[in-house]
Amino acid sequence: MTQFLGEFIGTFILVLLGNGVVAGNILSKTKEEGTGWTAIVFGWGIACSVAVYISGLFSPAHLNPAVTLAMASIGALSWNLVVPFILAQMLGAMLAAVVLWLHYFPHWKETKDQGLILASFSTGPAIRHTASNFLGEALGTAILVMTILAIGPNKVAAGLGPIIVGLVIFAVGFSLGPTTGYAINPARDLGPRIMHALLPIENKGDSDWSYAWIPVAGPIVGGIIGAICYNIALGLL
Amino acid sequence: MTQFLGEFIGTFILVLLGNGVVAGNILSKTKEEGTGWTAIVFGWGIACSVAVYISGLFSPAHLNPAVTLAMASIGALSWNLVVPFILAQMLGAMLAAVVLWLHYFPHWKETKDQGLILASFSTGPAIRHTASNFLGEALGTAILVMTILAIGPNKVAAGLGPIIVGLVIFAVGFSLGPTTGYAINPARDLGPRIMHALLPIENKGDSDWSYAWIPVAGPIVGGIIGAICYNIALGLL
Amino acid sequence: MTQFLGEFIGTFILVLLGNGVVAGNILSKTKEEGTGWTAIVFGWGIACSVAVYISGLFSPAHLNPAVTLAMASIGALSWNLVVPFILAQMLGAMLAAVVLWLHYFPHWKETKDQGLILASFSTGPAIRHTASNFLGEALGTAILVMTILAIGPNKVAAGLGPIIVGLVIFAVGFSLGPTTGYAINPARDLGPRIMHALLPIENKGDSDWSYAWIPVAGPIVGGIIGAICYNIALGLL
Amino acid sequence: MTQFLGEFIGTFILVLLGNGVVAGNILSKTKEEGTGWTAIVFGWGIACSVAVYISGLFSPAHLNPAVTLAMASIGALSWNLVVPFILAQMLGAMLAAVVLWLHYFPHWKETKDQGLILASFSTGPAIRHTASNFLGEALGTAILVMTILAIGPNKVAAGLGPIIVGLVIFAVGFSLGPTTGYAINPARDLGPRIMHALLPIENKGDSDWSYAWIPVAGPIVGGIIGAICYNIALGLL
Repeated sequence: MTQFLGEFIGTFILVLLGNGVVAGNILSKTKEEGTGWTAIVFGWGIACSVAVYISGLFSPAHLNPAVTLAMASIGALSWNLVVPFILAQMLGAMLAAVVLWLHYFPHWKETKDQGLILASFSTGPAIRHTASNFLGEALGTAILVMTILAIGPNKVAAGLGPIIVGLVIFAVGFSLGPTTGYAINPARDLGPRIMHALLPIENKGDSDWSYAWIPVAGPIVGGIIGAICYNIALGLL
Repeated sequence: MTQFLGEFIGTFILVLLGNGVVAGNILSKTKEEGTGWTAIVFGWGIACSVAVYISGLFSPAHLNPAVTLAMASIGALSWNLVVPFILAQMLGAMLAAVVLWLHYFPHWKETKDQGLILASFSTGPAIRHTASNFLGEALGTAILVMTILAIGPNKVAAGLGPIIVGLVIFAVGFSLGPTTGYAINPARDLGPRIMHALLPIENKGDSDWSYAWIPVAGPIVGGIIGAICYNIALGLL
Repeated sequence: MTQFLGEFIGTFILVLLGNGVVAGNILSKTKEEGTGWTAIVFGWGIACSVAVYISGLFSPAHLNPAVTLAMASIGALSWNLVVPFILAQMLGAMLAAVVLWLHYFPHWKETKDQGLILASFSTGPAIRHTASNFLGEALGTAILVMTILAIGPNKVAAGLGPIIVGLVIFAVGFSLGPTTGYAINPARDLGPRIMHALLPIENKGDSDWSYAWIPVAGPIVGGIIGAICYNIALGLL
Repeated sequence: MTQFLGEFIGTFILVLLGNGVVAGNILSKTKEEGTGWTAIVFGWGIACSVAVYISGLFSPAHLNPAVTLAMASIGALSWNLVVPFILAQMLGAMLAAVVLWLHYFPHWKETKDQGLILASFSTGPAIRHTASNFLGEALGTAILVMTILAIGPNKVAAGLGPIIVGLVIFAVGFSLGPTTGYAINPARDLGPRIMHALLPIENKGDSDWSYAWIPVAGPIVGGIIGAICYNIALGLL
């Protein structure tokens, strides 16, 4: 129960602060409009650190179905917890999308570009190319999972752990993210995309469902492969 | 007495360094003019870390009436200390506004825009919308208070505490701040606004008193709600 | 064997994330295009921290032939390990170049400038000037090696070590890197340059082999001199 | 002797990396040209952290005559060490200016603006205004000294100390530095200014000696006042 709460609160804060920086950069008439990619990368990375600090007392602070599945796949998390964790993560991400919609309420009608409005909720590719986009999402998640395993999944809420997790999100954002917008987290992408479809947002267009499977499947596949490979390597020590 | 001193020194340094980065970005003919939102976010976050390091030996380093009231509301601070703390915070913020006025003295007459001059003292909304602006100030403060509770209010001056507090200020600035300029601290906004009204600043206009209640009431309401909710959650552990 | 694996994985991740941020900034139609030098400096520095965290459990995480040779030259690494370490580092860097080529696959044909394509793989000078370019690469590597010696080569994977190594990469990038692009690592430069020559990249030009010796020899000479001088200084304590 | 060496090496690295980021931003045809104030602030702050890590094993890593005098004025440093420390700091800063001149050698003749060339060596005011410029240098140094006293001058080379010192340099740079370029260190300003006068730099103009006393006297006065006031406050604990 407290673990469910931790994943819910943590993913809520992660997506609130993470999607918040995207909205601040691309919606019209904000004070951050047009600041650019560096702000987005820092915003998402720090969002992750803060979310882990706040939720890490309650749960292992995965905040990400791909991390949860990766941990279960190497035996670092009971499979019984996988469904509740993912449910909590999805609900947290969806609530965050609603709260951000209210937070930026007067800015939606000032923003005329439907693509930018969707981008405040979910990711989309710079160039639509299934293999490269899938690889990008998988690769970024693999590196995230390897970092988490390196610092120890159970210590993630203590000391430097959340800061290191933030650093790897920075690294992925700067280096691998420029192609797809680095969801590297199915809940972060699918939860807000569902709310984009449901909420009565001014000027919104379609929710690009044809792309939606990539930021779900890519992170899951990449996270599991990264966890298994790194776990084998750790076994050699 | 030493606690009063700590809140006074700490809030002085917080507002000196925090409003300093705004002034450096928006006043005319500074070396930082036009650098933009990323600099403001980093400047305010680091200002907060430095202020907590310097003042944390003397007091719990709230430096913020909303944090003080939130802590009192959950029993983490004696109610007897609330008025002295807030008084010290207001005096520190007001003194900082005076010192910054002297520090940037030759730049005021070079700056012709009354709105920019006010923005060097106090916050204002990107789009004036009472509900959304109030929500934004409340939400940011709630997340700040939850982070402080997560790291332990009594350990805030040791080790990583001040850096983590700086990180949450970064996160709020990048993600929720682009709508209102994220006062998330009544002393930081009201203290300099009073000095804006009193000081003989060249080219200044009115002090926008009609907005002034939002960065006071929003943070107080958000901080108390955040503290109570997170405290209930911590009770489940 | 685990040390070989550590150097291979670590250098792979270092170059993947490091060259990734360059590609993201200079290839056409990425979301990061044109973000600029600050993003590149942060990207490379954080890449280094993450790579050391992931590989530091397996090896001393040199990830750089110049560091390996410098450590051997002062007796901090067995000479028997030098060839395997450098081999692992070269293979890791070359594999990273291949994976990045796939990751950014649709962007190569959008990018028409042959110089930018080479820059996604290897460094080149802002102004071609052998003595100054060589000095720059040597100087940056000397400071890197001195920092590693200051924090202790055997503790590099624990606690703050990888973050400090990232900081010195930031410092070199901001301050000494603007002349040559700061390879300060022969594997990081030569490995991807070989792959640039071999891979069937659209729009690529020549691999600038006439410059290739500087980012190999400069770091090696600078690293050894820096290590010997600092080691003598440490002997005075 | 080792303390002299520490102050010499540390100040050399501080000014090499600190002035390096200025040169990279303002000299013509570098890869960092025109990146702006954020890069300069980060570059100087990280330069400071790295310099303290490298030299802190040898000496208290003041690297700054104003810090040395402030520490002596409150009895935290023997007055016998003041002259040797300041001599080492000046020599380190002067050597750094020479090495940077060689490092950026082909860029001097590409740069036609005499003011920019001087700015690669020493600071100058955005608006020439003696009282405000003096206050700015004094205020920034006072905050630096208070932070150093808060973290304990003898622990500065261990753990987070050098990172916190870097943070306060960031804070001063973002918030108080936009008026004068924040020397806040007599050696950092006077040492390179002497070398600017002596070295045969292409396109150089005069060394602005009429301003040179402010970044010397301002930091010394501010540092001593800051140290004495904060020391009195600490005595109340």
